[in-house]
Parts: sequence; C-alpha cells; structure tokens
Amino acid sequence: MMTIAERVLDGDRLALARLLTLIENEDPQGLDSLGALYPHTGRAHLVGVTGAPGTGKSTLVNQIVKLLREPPAGVESHAPRVAVIAVDPSSPFSGGAILGDRIRMRDLAGDEGIFIRSMASRGALGGVSRATSGVAAALDAAGYDLVMIETVGAGQAEVDIASTAHTTIVIDAPGLGDVIQANKAGILEIADILVVNKADLSGAENTIRTLEMALSMAQNDRKHANAGTAAGPVWTIPVLGTVATTGEGVVSVVDAIRTHKDYLTSSGHWSLRERSRIQAQILTLLDQRLRTRFLGRLSDGRFSHAVTRVVERECSPDQAVKDLLEEMDP
Amino acid sequence: MMTIAERVLDGDRLALARLLTLIENEDPQGLDSLGALYPHTGRAHLVGVTGAPGTGKSTLVNQIVKLLREPPAGVESHAPRVAVIAVDPSSPFSGGAILGDRIRMRDLAGDEGIFIRSMASRGALGGVSRATSGVAAALDAAGYDLVMIETVGAGQAEVDIASTAHTTIVIDAPGLGDVIQANKAGILEIADILVVNKADLSGAENTIRTLEMALSMAQNDRKHANAGTAAGPVWTIPVLGTVATTGEGVVSVVDAIRTHKDYLTSSGHWSLRERSRIQAQILTLLDQRLRTRFLGRLSDGRFSHAVTRVVERECSPDQAVKDLLEEMDP
Repeated sequence: MMTIAERVLDGDRLALARLLTLIENEDPQGLDSLGALYPHTGRAHLVGVTGAPGTGKSTLVNQIVKLLREPPAGVESHAPRVAVIAVDPSSPFSGGAILGDRIRMRDLAGDEGIFIRSMASRGALGGVSRATSGVAAALDAAGYDLVMIETVGAGQAEVDIASTAHTTIVIDAPGLGDVIQANKAGILEIADILVVNKADLSGAENTIRTLEMALSMAQNDRKHANAGTAAGPVWTIPVLGTVATTGEGVVSVVDAIRTHKDYLTSSGHWSLRERSRIQAQILTLLDQRLRTRFLGRLSDGRFSHAVTRVVERECSPDQAVKDLLEEMDP
Repeated sequence: MMTIAERVLDGDRLALARLLTLIENEDPQGLDSLGALYPHTGRAHLVGVTGAPGTGKSTLVNQIVKLLREPPAGVESHAPRVAVIAVDPSSPFSGGAILGDRIRMRDLAGDEGIFIRSMASRGALGGVSRATSGVAAALDAAGYDLVMIETVGAGQAEVDIASTAHTTIVIDAPGLGDVIQANKAGILEIADILVVNKADLSGAENTIRTLEMALSMAQNDRKHANAGTAAGPVWTIPVLGTVATTGEGVVSVVDAIRTHKDYLTSSGHWSLRERSRIQAQILTLLDQRLRTRFLGRLSDGRFSHAVTRVVERECSPDQAVKDLLEEMDP
C-alpha cells in the first residue's frame, strides 16, 4: 500500500487534500508525511498576495491564476501548475471559508493544473503561519510551480506573508485611506509588486501617484543606507493599475511576477529569501515546542498559580516568568 | 533622587514618556520600573479600537477622547483621565507615527488629562503586543482611567487586540467589502461594540443591517453552544452608526464603552478577561525568554547549521527543530 506522501507525489488530489487537512490540524501523521516530502520541495515560486478588505484581492487572484493557466495567444509559454492558499480570518461557525471556496471552485473548476485551498485562521498567534508554511511545502512537493498565498492583511499579517513568500504583492485600492495613513509605510517595506485595483474608480490615479512618490522617497533612503555596499541587479517596485472584475491590467501583474522571479534567481536573492524564510519557520516551530515542553514539565497548577500572582498584583508578568524559569532550571 | 517609577507615580509626564520609550525598546531598566509600578496597576479600563485602513479610526478615537474629557452639559460626570496608544505599522524611516502624533497633539493639546503615545510596529511577531501590554500597564499605574489602544487591523491584529483589552471596539465603514467578505466573521468573534463609521455615506444602512444579521446568527449559534450553562447578565453587541468628522453618533459609542465596563464588572467577566489577558501576556514573555535562552546555549553556528540542513532539503523544519531539542536536552 502506498503512503500518503507517495500518493501525493503520484499526483493524487484526494491524498493531497487529506494531507493538507492533517497539516492544518498539526496532526503528527501530517508532520511525518511532510518530512518524507520535504526533499521534493524547493522548486515552487511562493507568491504572497495581501491587502485590506475591499481591495478585490480574491477576484484579482482568480484572474491571475486564469491568465497563468491560459497564456494569451501568441505567447509561447508552458503553463505552470498553480495552487492557491486562501488564508481568511473567518471563524469555524461562519462557513465563510467554505462559501468562498465554492465560488472559486466553480470558476476555476475542471482544470487539473489548479488546486485551491482555503484555510481558516483560528486566531492562535503563529498557528496560521506555521500551518501555511507546511501547506505551501506540501503543494510544492506535489508539483505546483507557483503557490499563491492570499491573506486579508494590514499590519502584522502583511509582515508574516512577506516572511513566508518569495514574492509579495500588496493590493491597494482608491478611497481606502489617505497619504497620512501610516500603514502605507509598512506596505512599502514588504511589497515587491504594488497593485492598485479598481483602477477605473475616480481617485485611482491619485492613489498610484501617492504610492509612487512614497516609494521613490523610501528607495532614496535605502540608497543612502546602502551606500558603499556591493552593487548588483536592483529591483524597482512597480505600481500597477488593474480592474480585476474585467481583467484589465492583469497581464502586467503576471509579467511582474515572472520578472521578479528572474530577478530573484539572477541576483542571488532567491537563496537569501529561501534562507530567511526557513529560518523564520524554524524559529516559529521552536517557540511552539519550547513552550509545550516547558509547560508540560511544570507541576500541576504551577502555571495557573503564576497567573494568579500577577492578577493579584503580587508581581509583574516579567517577574512571574523569571520565577518560573528560575524554578525549573536554576 | 526619585526613581523613574516614583516620578511616574508623582504625575511627571516627561518621566512617563521616557519610561514608555524604555519599555518599547525592551530596555531592562524599563522592565524593572514596570515591576515597581505593577502593584499600582489594575484600575484602568483598557479599550481596544481596531478596523481596516480607511474606516476613520483615528478621527473617531479623537472624538471619543474629546467627549470623554468634556461631558456634554447637564451630564454630571467626573471626566476620566484618558491615554491613547496608537499602534501603527509604520516603518522607522516613514516618520508616519510622528506625523500622526503631531496632528493629534495639536488637536488635543493643552489638556493634562490626556496622554497620547504612538508606537511603531516593527514587524517582530509578538514584539508589538509585548510592548503594548507594558505601555498600557505603565499608563494604568500613572493614573489614566481609560487607556485606548488603537491598531490598524484585519485578521491577526484584531485577535491580538482582543486579548490585550477589556473592551474591543471594531470599526467598519460602508463600501469596504461585501457579505461574503470572510473577515466579518472574525470581527464578530472579538467585537464588544461594533461601529459603522462614515454613516452618512450611501450603503451605510446596508452595512449596519448586514452586521446586525450576521450578529444575530452568531449569537443564536452561541446560545445553542452554551445551552445548559449558568445564566447571567448577557451583553448584546450594539451596532452603532457614526460620522467621526462631525461627531455625530459619538455620544452613543462613549455610552456603550461605559455600559460595557459596568457589564464586565457586574457579570464577573472583568476578572475573567483580566485573567486571560494576563495569561496571554505571560505566555508571550515566556516564549521570548525560552527562545533567547535556548539559542544562547547552542554552540556557535549550530542554529545556522540547522537552517542550512533545511535549505539543502536534508531534513524538514520540523525534523531540524526536533534534532536541536534532542541534542540540547536528550
């Protein structure tokens, strides 16, 4: 009988779906299978897509996937196999993930070169990004050339996606904020490609110009900071306008994804990102294991007692942690 | 000479500002001072305010603060001292935090009963929420009755704020998404008060109705889940329309904040939230200390070697972590 890992390598979609569930549930069998599959990973281009609610992310991702799968006439190109991981912060009882899934499945159904997976983000800090990395690795091993990871994001979620992906696309839309909106700066630090969707709305030109201005300021700052360091190919973050509902402008996004991959490999940044991606993954797993092990070794009620001491203001959280550590490992 | 903690207790604003910087930088002196101040904490009502970019959060928070400080004529009420912690994901080079700060300072300047602090979220997972808890505790000790914590959020950031605050306000606005927008479900799980800002825009009625419908569905589900558990006062999440730019509807938000605090204390949920808040804080600190200690004990290059093994696909991240743990503590 074939193992689940062997079936995944053999192209069995049901086995793949089952494996992803095991990984998402942090089931030991999932982790074991992932260990067996790991030597087959490292080929997929991981593309993160993030942006605030209302920017039209999902529609744009669907258009990108369609275009990747059906290159326009005249373009000689081998269509890559594409997987989409949709991370949404919906709750178990909302059914949001499943609904979104169905709508997408209907749209992209029937194409064996596409695999779509919705993940519910369950609120456990680190839990989602831990599972997302594993799910992406399984899809990589299963032979998907391009894995898109879509998250609803602002703030932390954006930073997380940037440490999970090789290429990060940040989607903005007109009317969601103004220049002072501080989160723009965070966007600039993580984006490899900026997209202003709903480019047919009034104000779109203004949003694009504002982003371009902020980008050129930020890149000047970086140039100063890097003065004297080795030169090499430089990536200029493009700001692309799209209308996802009609498909307008999506070709240039697909082009930018390909160009950014070429840039990463030719500049040596692919392996740098691969390394920092993996390092972040290891640290997240390490935190989880260290915590589990530490709490497992405490005597019954000891942790709860520490919480009570802080609740009663006998000591600060910092002191409570110091005492716990000291006690277990003087 | 007075210590910084003593000066903070004495009402010295400069000392407070200095202490917050020490805490934000995780400076040992900051943690020591926080330890000394901790017995003086536990009185402040911590109110989290979150919402996607473009919902008008900052304007609304400013209006709430003004109203808290200047109760309308005829209302007999002791004006609480109010602090605002604005967590924004801006970068060191953006200056966004400082700019936002200045605009607010100008607006609320001259009132000694208000303290505003902007924090840059620096991208370190857990780093911001760690520092935010400390900053909130220092403001609590300094005698601020109400500490508002404002974050740009969708997804993880929202979940974080809910575990940091006693009362969580989620701000939505018309036109940011539709019913399928999965993040609505996440909002419902953490919100104690829902605000639809920009209620003068078309579509606002629809947004309010949609949220109310989703809420009543979620609360039905919860009722079923809790069937048979002890009865007690029940909090019905209000959905409030506001126009922050004119101040319309802000009175009802301020009322809801007060009513929610009364509900928390009378139902016993205040101490439950206090406990889970502190537990989350302790776990975050514990993770950080365990990681630092573990990495510090590894021999030079050992961690980097583990990363290399995974980069070269000799083993999975999971296996690499297992090996590290095994090696240090067989």
